[in-house]
Amino acid sequence: MKILDCTLRDGGYYTQWDFDKKLTERYFTAMEQLPIDVVEIGYRSHASNTYFGKYYYSPVSLLQKARQLMPTKKLALMLNLKDCPANDSLIPLLEKCRGYADLFRIAADPAKINEAIALAKFIKSLGFGVALNLMYLSELKNSVTIVERLGELDGVADCISLVDSYGGVYPHEVAELIKYCKNFTNVPLGFHGHNNIELAFANSLAAIEAGCEFVDGTITGMGRGAGNLKTELLLTHLSAKAGYNVNYDVLSNIVHDFEHLKAAYQWGTNLPYMVSGINSLPQQNVMDWISKRYYSVQSIVRALHNKKLGTDDN
Amino acid sequence: MKILDCTLRDGGYYTQWDFDKKLTERYFTAMEQLPIDVVEIGYRSHASNTYFGKYYYSPVSLLQKARQLMPTKKLALMLNLKDCPANDSLIPLLEKCRGYADLFRIAADPAKINEAIALAKFIKSLGFGVALNLMYLSELKNSVTIVERLGELDGVADCISLVDSYGGVYPHEVAELIKYCKNFTNVPLGFHGHNNIELAFANSLAAIEAGCEFVDGTITGMGRGAGNLKTELLLTHLSAKAGYNVNYDVLSNIVHDFEHLKAAYQWGTNLPYMVSGINSLPQQNVMDWISKRYYSVQSIVRALHNKKLGTDDN
Repeated sequence: MKILDCTLRDGGYYTQWDFDKKLTERYFTAMEQLPIDVVEIGYRSHASNTYFGKYYYSPVSLLQKARQLMPTKKLALMLNLKDCPANDSLIPLLEKCRGYADLFRIAADPAKINEAIALAKFIKSLGFGVALNLMYLSELKNSVTIVERLGELDGVADCISLVDSYGGVYPHEVAELIKYCKNFTNVPLGFHGHNNIELAFANSLAAIEAGCEFVDGTITGMGRGAGNLKTELLLTHLSAKAGYNVNYDVLSNIVHDFEHLKAAYQWGTNLPYMVSGINSLPQQNVMDWISKRYYSVQSIVRALHNKKLGTDDN
Repeated sequence: MKILDCTLRDGGYYTQWDFDKKLTERYFTAMEQLPIDVVEIGYRSHASNTYFGKYYYSPVSLLQKARQLMPTKKLALMLNLKDCPANDSLIPLLEKCRGYADLFRIAADPAKINEAIALAKFIKSLGFGVALNLMYLSELKNSVTIVERLGELDGVADCISLVDSYGGVYPHEVAELIKYCKNFTNVPLGFHGHNNIELAFANSLAAIEAGCEFVDGTITGMGRGAGNLKTELLLTHLSAKAGYNVNYDVLSNIVHDFEHLKAAYQWGTNLPYMVSGINSLPQQNVMDWISKRYYSVQSIVRALHNKKLGTDDN
């Protein structure tokens, strides 16, 4: 079983992908000393008109520093499928990472499985490692035609991770879906949980039990909306139950660093995230409602009601 | 399945059982409007030399107010077995509650199963409802002789709740233990989780699935150490998956009230609680270390090491 830590990539939703340089250097140093297999540093993106910080673009200077501080780790970068179609304009974006990034992970809506497969093959043809993060796991069980196509990534992708985008699935659902997907592909599977209903850890355990080979976590759970599986929880579990060698001084110090950020940004679950997760409402909507301080649970319940009626959310 | 909310009783570990009068009145009013079956108001205790607030004693004036605001709910009080042996001095303590309290729950160390059974029978003989909270669930699987005796409470107790005192058990362990206990007693079983490794909800689901009939929760998880199953999470689940009718305005308002307290007292899990939970170290030790601000994870790891060697914790 391999651990992928994506604290900066997923945590960037709270900081617009800006992070203090010293913090990230301590983070890279800690990752190097902990039993983490893959560190996903940030997004790799084309230029944008909206302001985003360094970890949205992951420039070469950043990759050099990351590689220097994590010589023994696999380094990953995420590509948003919707912003990165498989065409020649992508080549320079990827080529600049050669020698630094081991893996590009494609974040894809399952509805865009054609484009995702095409992009994975394109990246592979350039000689890079590639993985797929398939969002909206909860909808896959009704999408046989998508799951059946995962075999097209055999020999192409290093991992296909199923993402509980809404944070609302239950352990038995995760286990069933992992087992089902294994019927159609021999690519190692992964799981990326969200913690809306405090099942990120239980779901990750169920995924591992069902044969999943990669688990995503973030320090203090820093990540979009209600946040992710806490890497420190997974490591504590693996230390106690599977003999992993964890340096608790290193782990404790980096957790402490991110707890300062958490005090400012307040990720983690709460009643609105619980209600939205269990009812499959997008994290981003709830983040916006909460950050603008005009949300009420009643507004979420109203959105749910509208959704059932097929009208637009507000 | 019945829900027991013990926010004030278990949350009192953070406030020395002092709570603002207006807050508790809003809490009682909310409980009355939510699908909660039993409300455990506080401890019932003999006079003590240490200072404890009102909810450690639950005087009649408090019970009258609680009954007035929650006319349709069962009201419970907890007795600490170690402070309340079954003798005549207990009679006035209990008699003053007659007409207000429906249930006395005995918090008992399984090593004191003799005294717990004696106290349960004594309370029952006085005509009160009685239940048992059996602590240190994780040790019960090695204590066949204790589990075998639970049948002596048939016809005596209304519920026997298994308490994950350390907050370190896993769903399959809870399920196995619940099923095992059902071989020896026909008293309805309950589960009281702690959230050190973020499994309070997953463990409660496993307990329900295994035939458990009572689940304990607290608003915002307020409770000893890393805290409890969040009542709002259980209600959100039951609302989405089992058709429970939950007034989200009422729920949201009372959660909001306790979030103010949480900002001050900071319950919830963190790395020290995770490490101690998974390794069965007492919550109270870690609470003390944290509140005195001289803990380090290293001190906990050292305590663990001492425990393995059979020497005293520091």
